Amino acid sequence: MRNFSYTELFEFSCKIFLAIGCSKQNAAQAATVLLSADLRGIDSHGIARLSGYVRLCEVNRINANPNIKILHETASTAVVDGDAGLGLIVAPIAMQIAMEKANKVGTGWVSVQNSNHFGIAGYHAMLALPQEMIGIAMTNASALVAPTYSRERLLGTNPIAVAVPAGSEPPFVADFATTTAANGKLEILQRLNKPAPEGWVQTKDGSSSTNAGELKNGGALLPLGGDKEHGSHKGYMLGSIVDFFSGILSGANFGPWVPPFPAYLPMPENMPGKGIGHFLGAMRIDAFRPAEDFKMDMDSWIKRVKKAKTIKGKERIVIPGEPEAEMEKYRKINGFNLDAQVIADLAQLAAKFSIPF
Amino acid sequence: MRNFSYTELFEFSCKIFLAIGCSKQNAAQAATVLLSADLRGIDSHGIARLSGYVRLCEVNRINANPNIKILHETASTAVVDGDAGLGLIVAPIAMQIAMEKANKVGTGWVSVQNSNHFGIAGYHAMLALPQEMIGIAMTNASALVAPTYSRERLLGTNPIAVAVPAGSEPPFVADFATTTAANGKLEILQRLNKPAPEGWVQTKDGSSSTNAGELKNGGALLPLGGDKEHGSHKGYMLGSIVDFFSGILSGANFGPWVPPFPAYLPMPENMPGKGIGHFLGAMRIDAFRPAEDFKMDMDSWIKRVKKAKTIKGKERIVIPGEPEAEMEKYRKINGFNLDAQVIADLAQLAAKFSIPF
Repeated sequence: MRNFSYTELFEFSCKIFLAIGCSKQNAAQAATVLLSADLRGIDSHGIARLSGYVRLCEVNRINANPNIKILHETASTAVVDGDAGLGLIVAPIAMQIAMEKANKVGTGWVSVQNSNHFGIAGYHAMLALPQEMIGIAMTNASALVAPTYSRERLLGTNPIAVAVPAGSEPPFVADFATTTAANGKLEILQRLNKPAPEGWVQTKDGSSSTNAGELKNGGALLPLGGDKEHGSHKGYMLGSIVDFFSGILSGANFGPWVPPFPAYLPMPENMPGKGIGHFLGAMRIDAFRPAEDFKMDMDSWIKRVKKAKTIKGKERIVIPGEPEAEMEKYRKINGFNLDAQVIADLAQLAAKFSIPF
Repeated sequence: MRNFSYTELFEFSCKIFLAIGCSKQNAAQAATVLLSADLRGIDSHGIARLSGYVRLCEVNRINANPNIKILHETASTAVVDGDAGLGLIVAPIAMQIAMEKANKVGTGWVSVQNSNHFGIAGYHAMLALPQEMIGIAMTNASALVAPTYSRERLLGTNPIAVAVPAGSEPPFVADFATTTAANGKLEILQRLNKPAPEGWVQTKDGSSSTNAGELKNGGALLPLGGDKEHGSHKGYMLGSIVDFFSGILSGANFGPWVPPFPAYLPMPENMPGKGIGHFLGAMRIDAFRPAEDFKMDMDSWIKRVKKAKTIKGKERIVIPGEPEAEMEKYRKINGFNLDAQVIADLAQLAAKFSIPF
């Protein structure tokens, strides 16, 4: 454990992205998105993954300077070809296109093919906030999740982010995997040698398991809900919808054919599309109601929820996005700790590209 | 228990809607939407609720022949005033507007204020299917759900429906409350004098409960996930998003201020908006990709999921919407049973309006 400043990690990440061939602008964009995860406290999706992106580049799965283009469009929609770029670079451009369309016709919806992992979904959804728009971001991902009653992994953790502007209150930002728990939480339990709660994973035979390392034995993550009795069919539906919007509307891969993030894993056979898929949406608030009225009602909603009576032992009801915004403010000033494993990983990267660390 | 044909219940419902003042066209529309729930096996939202709609009318909360109008619009969006009509009548018109916009600019998004309960969300989403569009429908509802860590009920069961066309396979139709279990399931357990599984409800103090009647004691339904460890914050986020899209974007009521369905319950104090809110969306497939290509990929997805290995004791993995479509086909020909309580309720309605039953 050692404390790093945001600036030093941002600059280091930029240098790594430059080293793998990104242009200056692309490197800065990728580093910004990547580190937004660390700033917001979602450490599993931040700089800890930098070496993973580099390895994808080394096996020629990443195009460092993609020629991102619109394949088809209408006034409110587009399909974008990410040209095998980093999702960190592709998704913000797709979101920009969605917002331009929203400016003209009220909403914009962009489905992306031929991309790669895009960091945290929340970053892309939040791009809409300064424009007084609601932002939506989803992505599919390689299959780790077993639909209800399945023994096979057929869906990714397929996250959904929705960012909604408020007035004097901070914006509402939801950003969640459509599984009971994200894979990163299981990895933390494994490192601590602790069991997982029931309802997070199943064995390769589909039995309930509390082994945090069950995925290594051929097990699967469970959809939000955990089991049928607790609504896992709803998590399965949500993950499926993300797959259709991101993968099938765009012509990317979908279901069990989505390429894996770890570069050492083989690519699926008979892939039906290109790369992984994202879906970005922007809705201009005043395409519905005056933004001031909307934001006043959002403030009322947030204030009412915040002052609700809590269950014993809990001090407050969390407004989604608020703890992350507080964390971001704090970490931007005070920096943050990286654990020994991540530091070793970054030191290796530094050595490989002869970059000081 | 007694078997009724679809036609006799449809005609009976029409007569009741006519008796409360609906025009012939409105009565037929309302009966169609209402009975689509029974046909699809969602008995809690079908004809069992007919007397509930009548009682809302008797306390002057329903306008039998609303003047439904667009308050504001852009090329891809609209806010619709339901004029206190039955949601069963208002929502299909709002969906029609969404589809017209999708025809012109690729997608259409309509937020509705001043409406009432709209039956099953799935009906409205499925209106998009024959047009080769993806259909989306949501509604807020009176507060029965406690957000994570809250003792108070602040959200409705706020369902989401998404209907996605396929090719030779039946369409994918998701339609689910954003809670662990719908209230109707608790009512069934109460009638059977059975306990509820953990994670469905909490007591008024916020403790875990297996009492299926806990809501009567001031308890609350729990968001999808059940508790924080199992992702209830994700169910809480989903329910909140439905509330913003349906209630706040439109200028309807939201959160704890949404009017209740049972007519005998008092209206919330200091209501900030008008009636309840819905959100309807339509996305034209070929605004993204040729519909044939999309449907071919949907078929691949569905076929792959269907042939996945199942967990012990389960014969198949369910494709959302498929059991409901099979039920609809069966019940349209063979009719369906109503339980004694519902029959007695309908007999009372018949007597009240001197309609044969």
